[in-house]
Amino acid sequence: MRVVVPYAAAEPKTRLADALSPAERSAFADEMLADVLAAIRATGEDPELLATEPVEADAPVTVDRRPLTEAVNAVLAETDGPVAVVMADLALATPGALARLFEAEGEVVLAPGRGGGTNALVARADDFRVDYHGASYLDHRAAAREVEADLTVVDSHRLATDVDEREDLAEVLIHGGSAPERSETDASPDPRRTSGARSWLRRAGFDLAADEGRTTVERDEESSRP
Amino acid sequence: MRVVVPYAAAEPKTRLADALSPAERSAFADEMLADVLAAIRATGEDPELLATEPVEADAPVTVDRRPLTEAVNAVLAETDGPVAVVMADLALATPGALARLFEAEGEVVLAPGRGGGTNALVARADDFRVDYHGASYLDHRAAAREVEADLTVVDSHRLATDVDEREDLAEVLIHGGSAPERSETDASPDPRRTSGARSWLRRAGFDLAADEGRTTVERDEESSRP
Repeated sequence: MRVVVPYAAAEPKTRLADALSPAERSAFADEMLADVLAAIRATGEDPELLATEPVEADAPVTVDRRPLTEAVNAVLAETDGPVAVVMADLALATPGALARLFEAEGEVVLAPGRGGGTNALVARADDFRVDYHGASYLDHRAAAREVEADLTVVDSHRLATDVDEREDLAEVLIHGGSAPERSETDASPDPRRTSGARSWLRRAGFDLAADEGRTTVERDEESSRP
Repeated sequence: MRVVVPYAAAEPKTRLADALSPAERSAFADEMLADVLAAIRATGEDPELLATEPVEADAPVTVDRRPLTEAVNAVLAETDGPVAVVMADLALATPGALARLFEAEGEVVLAPGRGGGTNALVARADDFRVDYHGASYLDHRAAAREVEADLTVVDSHRLATDVDEREDLAEVLIHGGSAPERSETDASPDPRRTSGARSWLRRAGFDLAADEGRTTVERDEESSRP
């Protein structure tokens, strides 16, 4: 199976502007990408990057300067076998969560993101195409129906959590990195012992902060910059 | 297994004050509770309510006016066998997602909520106690370690989504109700064909709204009030 990770290399993670400088957002996005590539590789798959411009990465890189939807659809059109598309900001993705996605039956397998996005998918139906605008999860359900593809949905908090906004950083601090306990699907612990994105946030001075409702983050502005 | 659903009947869902009036919040909380009870029942378990005051509900009710932590710990202390604790605002919970929780091995099974909470758990270790203050998911991991209980974590977006804030309403509109497609765990569709909470939001005039990032909700103020 081809496993494609789209990556918008220029000015990534603009919605984190209230938490990180442009240079920091770029460095943090790189850490998340490296974590995602490592998690994919730990499932036994070989990830490839679909980048908007040339980037240095630990994976083969295809450059396609078109918007996400067009670039992914070009991959789907040119590929005969199954294709997985995994977003580069799934900092909580573990090999176990990704294996649930890759191994789920179905001609179209969707992992919804919070807020109606599609954070990861597997397409085994030749004529399935993506449209990442708006609430793409609902559109992709409709698209699967249109091509009469059998649809499966993967219910995963780890895959539903794309890291776009300041509050998402709390999820990285809470769940990022390997978990020593067993999950439902892995009897053995995650072989990755560290999360680059979580470590990066720690070095940048971020820590959990109790709030009225959900736990958020605070930053120690005196900390050394990563 | 005892399956306990704590329910704070007085002034529920205050963090939804920017979206719903006090009477609406109470009605909406009732709909979510009914959905959760129905989903639990569809797994074959018999839910019971642990309420802060007498309430009308389709389940046996125990009234305990103490704070959540103390009330749940009293249940854990008085019960010899396994106990599940499922929050009443898990409007996305399906029988399939709850079955993953109930059937997961482990002396302590945790379903983390977004923002570090614990949305559902199963305790099979007699001496495990809860503490719902702060980032309770991390505290409950530590508590499981302290009593040397085998820990399992259930990775579910449906169970991670407690409905507390306006943006969470979008999740109810997107995912609430039965899904006609197969999930990984259910070959057959969810037997519940409707979500009371989702229908209630629709009747109240809520619909999905495209935003810069994640999909949010908007309300037709002309719509009839439910």
